[in-house]
Amino acid sequence: MSKQVTTIEWKEDKLFLLDQTVLPNVVAYRSFDTIQGVWDAIQDMIVRGAPAIGVTAAYGMYLGAKSIETSEMSEFQKGYKKIGEYLATSRPTAVNLSWAIDRMIDFSQKNDQLTVDKLKEQLLEEAKLIHKEDEEINYKIGENMLSLLSDGCGLLTHCNAGALATTKYGTATAAMYLAQEKNWDFKVYSDETRPRLQGSNLTAFELHQAGIDVTVITDSMAAVIMSKGEIDAIIVGADRVAANGDVANKIGTFNLSILAKNFNIPMYIAVPTPTIDMQTKTGAEIPIEERDSHEVIKGFGEFTAPKDVKVFNPAFDVTPHENITAIVTEKGIVRAPFEENLKKLFE
Amino acid sequence: MSKQVTTIEWKEDKLFLLDQTVLPNVVAYRSFDTIQGVWDAIQDMIVRGAPAIGVTAAYGMYLGAKSIETSEMSEFQKGYKKIGEYLATSRPTAVNLSWAIDRMIDFSQKNDQLTVDKLKEQLLEEAKLIHKEDEEINYKIGENMLSLLSDGCGLLTHCNAGALATTKYGTATAAMYLAQEKNWDFKVYSDETRPRLQGSNLTAFELHQAGIDVTVITDSMAAVIMSKGEIDAIIVGADRVAANGDVANKIGTFNLSILAKNFNIPMYIAVPTPTIDMQTKTGAEIPIEERDSHEVIKGFGEFTAPKDVKVFNPAFDVTPHENITAIVTEKGIVRAPFEENLKKLFE
Repeated sequence: MSKQVTTIEWKEDKLFLLDQTVLPNVVAYRSFDTIQGVWDAIQDMIVRGAPAIGVTAAYGMYLGAKSIETSEMSEFQKGYKKIGEYLATSRPTAVNLSWAIDRMIDFSQKNDQLTVDKLKEQLLEEAKLIHKEDEEINYKIGENMLSLLSDGCGLLTHCNAGALATTKYGTATAAMYLAQEKNWDFKVYSDETRPRLQGSNLTAFELHQAGIDVTVITDSMAAVIMSKGEIDAIIVGADRVAANGDVANKIGTFNLSILAKNFNIPMYIAVPTPTIDMQTKTGAEIPIEERDSHEVIKGFGEFTAPKDVKVFNPAFDVTPHENITAIVTEKGIVRAPFEENLKKLFE
Repeated sequence: MSKQVTTIEWKEDKLFLLDQTVLPNVVAYRSFDTIQGVWDAIQDMIVRGAPAIGVTAAYGMYLGAKSIETSEMSEFQKGYKKIGEYLATSRPTAVNLSWAIDRMIDFSQKNDQLTVDKLKEQLLEEAKLIHKEDEEINYKIGENMLSLLSDGCGLLTHCNAGALATTKYGTATAAMYLAQEKNWDFKVYSDETRPRLQGSNLTAFELHQAGIDVTVITDSMAAVIMSKGEIDAIIVGADRVAANGDVANKIGTFNLSILAKNFNIPMYIAVPTPTIDMQTKTGAEIPIEERDSHEVIKGFGEFTAPKDVKVFNPAFDVTPHENITAIVTEKGIVRAPFEENLKKLFE
């Protein structure tokens, strides 16, 4: 069995979250039993990663339902919508947040024939279902990815598309946890992922915690380990996949894909199908957020460059589909021609 | 005229060094008028970079000569050798350090017909000559490199092969300072260069200080700016060039060379000819120093990964000659076939 870290747990009628703001130096869980507490947890990034935020929000919506003191269904529904609007303000741009809130409100509206007490019970079951579905999706991504790998392999990943960003398994890391369950002998290299070091303080943390053989490198060392024959596959997640297979992901992914091509190493993208946006034709249409210069030149307290120097700090890059070997989803493995084959996935 | 920062200056019978241990937050010069002071300055890395250490050592050897209180030439020579042995212990592996010390001792032995006082005067002149020669070599590297570039260009560099590592101009940066003197309109991107950030705290510092348009990026952003057409040439220095043209340089250079090939961007190596080691047949013979893991996971005070996680931290990598467009030296520009053409350079 995989000894992976638990990100989200529901027990004793409370939501337990691993506090990701103090990793990797402190491993601490915090418990929440009010909607206000959950709002703070999302806002303060105690929990992060789109799927993990969605599941947290679902439990938050149950805690919110519990706080409505009425046995009148119409009054409950009115109050519940307000709670949804409130929770949605905790991180307005997170897609999974509003998706989970909408699903919970939808569920409550479709079940308004129940008593309020009964509905509240059912809302907890719905939150648990959302939680379970996330685990299942990641498990299937892991199974599909595993079919492309073999015992004894060396893997390279970038940033954190790990268990910490989901409820269990992660997306890019799912095959690693499943390989561990199968007692495979394998090795993972984790790019530290400048500027925010998620590959170091999150991915290396969770794999190390689970007892997986992980080695941290700086992003610029990838070519060296590839040239030594240490890497059999690169596995990363994605923030958005366009209809033609172009992939927006953490800055540095494009870089890696060129190295992969140079060394003839397969480049795999691990994503749940909702991340594939058939409305976005190509990667050129994906807006790239540019972040504050201080992330690069003042990431660790003191300035590490002249404070008024110019800095270019895009959070993401777009890897052209030509550089991608396969997009691995819970529904199957998609290869080129991507435009055609991604379409088939949704038929 | 270029407004580049001065790394080393001799004035008022004292050696002035820019204190590189406090850059980029503090710009301070420290003066030295004893051999002990120079020993400390080299040991404490107030001055760094092979050519700059060599010039500092030459002035140190003059200060050492001054401190020998005798008018007996044979006694002076005996004392002077001891001073050389002492200074050589300040950073034992620095090649330019022992080279400069040997040259000063050699000079004193060849001029033992002079009076001790007169010899001391001449030793100062020899140190000034070593200083001037370093400037001239870099200037010529810059001129040769400039012939490969044109007004309006975008350049990318990695680590610091800059004025701060030499006495003036630097090697990789020489063409940039000359382009500025010619009032060219050009733009430089500087990789921050993890783990030690020399591209950020040294190269970005010195170019910014000189008023050159420089932008800091993380090492993983290079592919994005290349794909935007912002880069016309990559210019880096080298720690050692093998007889077949393979280049050992700061970790990340190999990475860049693969990106350069992918985007059809020329990859230029700026080096003084003594860095070309005809005794080393290929890059495979160059030993690569692996450094402490803390540079990667504790570079900024706190741990940024689990403290007992595995880390791979090679200080250098080897770029195969196939990925190099030209090696630019003070004696001329060398292109493939490198083995043949490097040999010609020394004929």
